[in-house]
Amino acid sequence: MKFNKVTPKVVEALLAIVGPEHIVLPEATDAMLRYTHDETEDLRYLPEVVVKPVNAEEISRIMQYCHQNFIPITPRGAGTGLSGGALAVHQGVILSTERLNKIISIDERNLQATVEPGVITQVFQEAVIERGLFYPPDPSSRGSCFLGGNLSESSGGPRAVKYGVTKDYVLNMEVVLPTGEITWTGANVLKNATGYNLTQLMVGSEGTLGIITKIVFKLIPYPPQNLVMLVPFRDEEEACAAVSRIFMAGIVPSALEFMERDAILWASKYMNIAVDLPEDILAHLLIELDGKDMDLLYKDAEEVYQVLEKYDVGEILVADTEKQKADLWQLRRNVGHAVKSNSIYKEEDTVVPRAELPKLLKGVKEIGAKYNFKSVCYGHAGDGNLHINIVKGDMTDDDWNNKLPEGIREIFRLCVSLGGTISGEHGIGLVQRPYIGIALNEVQLRLLKGIKQLFDPHGILNPGKIF
Amino acid sequence: MKFNKVTPKVVEALLAIVGPEHIVLPEATDAMLRYTHDETEDLRYLPEVVVKPVNAEEISRIMQYCHQNFIPITPRGAGTGLSGGALAVHQGVILSTERLNKIISIDERNLQATVEPGVITQVFQEAVIERGLFYPPDPSSRGSCFLGGNLSESSGGPRAVKYGVTKDYVLNMEVVLPTGEITWTGANVLKNATGYNLTQLMVGSEGTLGIITKIVFKLIPYPPQNLVMLVPFRDEEEACAAVSRIFMAGIVPSALEFMERDAILWASKYMNIAVDLPEDILAHLLIELDGKDMDLLYKDAEEVYQVLEKYDVGEILVADTEKQKADLWQLRRNVGHAVKSNSIYKEEDTVVPRAELPKLLKGVKEIGAKYNFKSVCYGHAGDGNLHINIVKGDMTDDDWNNKLPEGIREIFRLCVSLGGTISGEHGIGLVQRPYIGIALNEVQLRLLKGIKQLFDPHGILNPGKIF
Repeated sequence: MKFNKVTPKVVEALLAIVGPEHIVLPEATDAMLRYTHDETEDLRYLPEVVVKPVNAEEISRIMQYCHQNFIPITPRGAGTGLSGGALAVHQGVILSTERLNKIISIDERNLQATVEPGVITQVFQEAVIERGLFYPPDPSSRGSCFLGGNLSESSGGPRAVKYGVTKDYVLNMEVVLPTGEITWTGANVLKNATGYNLTQLMVGSEGTLGIITKIVFKLIPYPPQNLVMLVPFRDEEEACAAVSRIFMAGIVPSALEFMERDAILWASKYMNIAVDLPEDILAHLLIELDGKDMDLLYKDAEEVYQVLEKYDVGEILVADTEKQKADLWQLRRNVGHAVKSNSIYKEEDTVVPRAELPKLLKGVKEIGAKYNFKSVCYGHAGDGNLHINIVKGDMTDDDWNNKLPEGIREIFRLCVSLGGTISGEHGIGLVQRPYIGIALNEVQLRLLKGIKQLFDPHGILNPGKIF
Repeated sequence: MKFNKVTPKVVEALLAIVGPEHIVLPEATDAMLRYTHDETEDLRYLPEVVVKPVNAEEISRIMQYCHQNFIPITPRGAGTGLSGGALAVHQGVILSTERLNKIISIDERNLQATVEPGVITQVFQEAVIERGLFYPPDPSSRGSCFLGGNLSESSGGPRAVKYGVTKDYVLNMEVVLPTGEITWTGANVLKNATGYNLTQLMVGSEGTLGIITKIVFKLIPYPPQNLVMLVPFRDEEEACAAVSRIFMAGIVPSALEFMERDAILWASKYMNIAVDLPEDILAHLLIELDGKDMDLLYKDAEEVYQVLEKYDVGEILVADTEKQKADLWQLRRNVGHAVKSNSIYKEEDTVVPRAELPKLLKGVKEIGAKYNFKSVCYGHAGDGNLHINIVKGDMTDDDWNNKLPEGIREIFRLCVSLGGTISGEHGIGLVQRPYIGIALNEVQLRLLKGIKQLFDPHGILNPGKIF
């Protein structure tokens, strides 16, 4: 794909659309800095210009212009992505949705809400909780990530295990296509058998098919009660095996998170809190149960204990206060930051059928031994979604750059052989792109590329991602 | 689209693929009869040949042959569809999936099952219930419809209100494309952010993009307890209004069905049972609550009563025994058959945000008065999904054929103006095809047609449906 550069004439055209306050050029070094990276490894790409439109109409005009002039556009939410989706790898224009940040309406009669894509996930969650409503998807970055980004990557988070991922809450979206056309994808209804599912085609398309400008979410009643427990295991694979057993006992926890020993140690160190972890504890499960009725939760907890009795577990900590619960969650949510702060790393977002987790974990460690890398594993075990953080530590640059990719390939091949795939909630983006052929066959790739061509005939939207 | 006819040479080629026992020609009048219709109105189309392949490989060879020779193929499940999707409107080949009828595996460790498309929905439900597992989608025709057809139409049913529709339980599918290529659409995982969502693109595509040959479903633990109540209302619109209020009170029933007075009367007459319905009762809500704990269900029921107290309701019947529950459900499930047996009819599968139901119902009756048609309304009110059965009764053929379509247009325009759309769970198929432009704009239609072209360049698969 041959693109044109952002000339002064292009800047002028963009400026006429968004206004001078809403454009950033590379000479504004400080203002530009945050647009050169997302949360993916230590990657940096400098765009030629950043524009911050305020609505679908401005985005439509920008898209039309760039479509006609073959200028690449990289859409960007909060820049918290972990697969490099918001990086301007072909330079050109970064289109930030940060000014589309309104909660347009919360419709309590229909349990729906209409929002713009630049609303922070947690802000939205708190706004609906005030009305007794619940928007469950909660990626670890929920305090800073945008709903539009969550949709683009089909984000999950701990509650997905009971409540589903972001895609399961979208009823309808307004999108601007790369050609500049504005359309809704569906209708504001819970069931829709009217034509192909454009809504779900757009969700998880990583900003390559269109830019989301409005979202209609469904909401559910807020479950007022919950119960959180931290279960220490003396064997990592046993912790993984227990996950599947809990579901088989008829319990659907609202979260079921796995953390390797190092994940907890690094997170507690990062947060500067003392954690007294016996030496023989190699992993933890963080289990949350939620619902309307506390008595029922205690009954469910009893059933969970009965499952856990069959394993070699340490003393189970049940969080009694809201503070204790918040602390446990804080610990879990900080694992990613902790690993990141500790070393250069790569994060793989593997996912397998949940009962295959022990095999995945064992395989990852064996592959690590073979390729001489250390990994810290944690994640949404209830979904079979294991985040594998490979830390550079004292690996040589040569091994890191040239040998490690073969190790990653082996991990991904293992996932696929177990019925899984290479990304559960982070997307393919830039960094998993070399591995897409492990997960998708030639037929699938042909269909994906055909769909891309249909939506974006000039290939201007987020080029260099997915395939 | 210009297609070729099924010549003796074509029959020979198909026969070589499926074998002589698995092919039906028009001269076999009796054997052919069932393939000339589905459950849509009184429509009849005679195909040139019916083939009954047994696996993906045979289907692939049939598709390849028909693709190369421009011969239309209409895929067919159990033929219980309500939008004419299985009708051979361009003649050619009917490809029946009836021999792909195996439950391949029920994986209790992962709460997944792999099935072929020709498995009857209820057979599958009962097979997983035996293992304490639950496959919730239950269209009214569940005793005879196929899972493959459920997927093709994105079918729902009463439990969708709490548990979601068929699409929400599919993890992965094996499909044969019109070109004969065989591929899986995703992976056997609960979360997948690896490329565009081909699985959800295929679901609800009404057999126009490919033929499903294997399905991996997710399952959930079976909720062992439930409670069913029948609530009579003296005002139909109040019944609709109560629906939204129940959710606003924080209750998510496992079913919330609406039936007009005539719906109950016709169904009870059809089933030959006596129902003593006071004259002032104009509608009913059938409410089911389910879960693990009976005490909690009684608490929820109390909250439902508190909502209902605000309306002018008759005596609430709470089904105490399994027999009573089954009878109530039997009544509800027979409304469609009852209407069908009573008169020529058309069924519209409207859907709106649930709080807009009273407006929809009022509008339908006003439009009926204007165009002089009688309607019997019932359906999945919790989802905002209202089935409008328009009965011919004593309408003239001229009014039925020429005036009524304008009335249907008005109903659909009303749905869309309320944020809804023209099909919730039956699909567009043949009979809603003239109305698709009311629900979808030019941009959407261009994308849909582009996707169709990408998957099926010769347009051989289920031509004449959707658009």
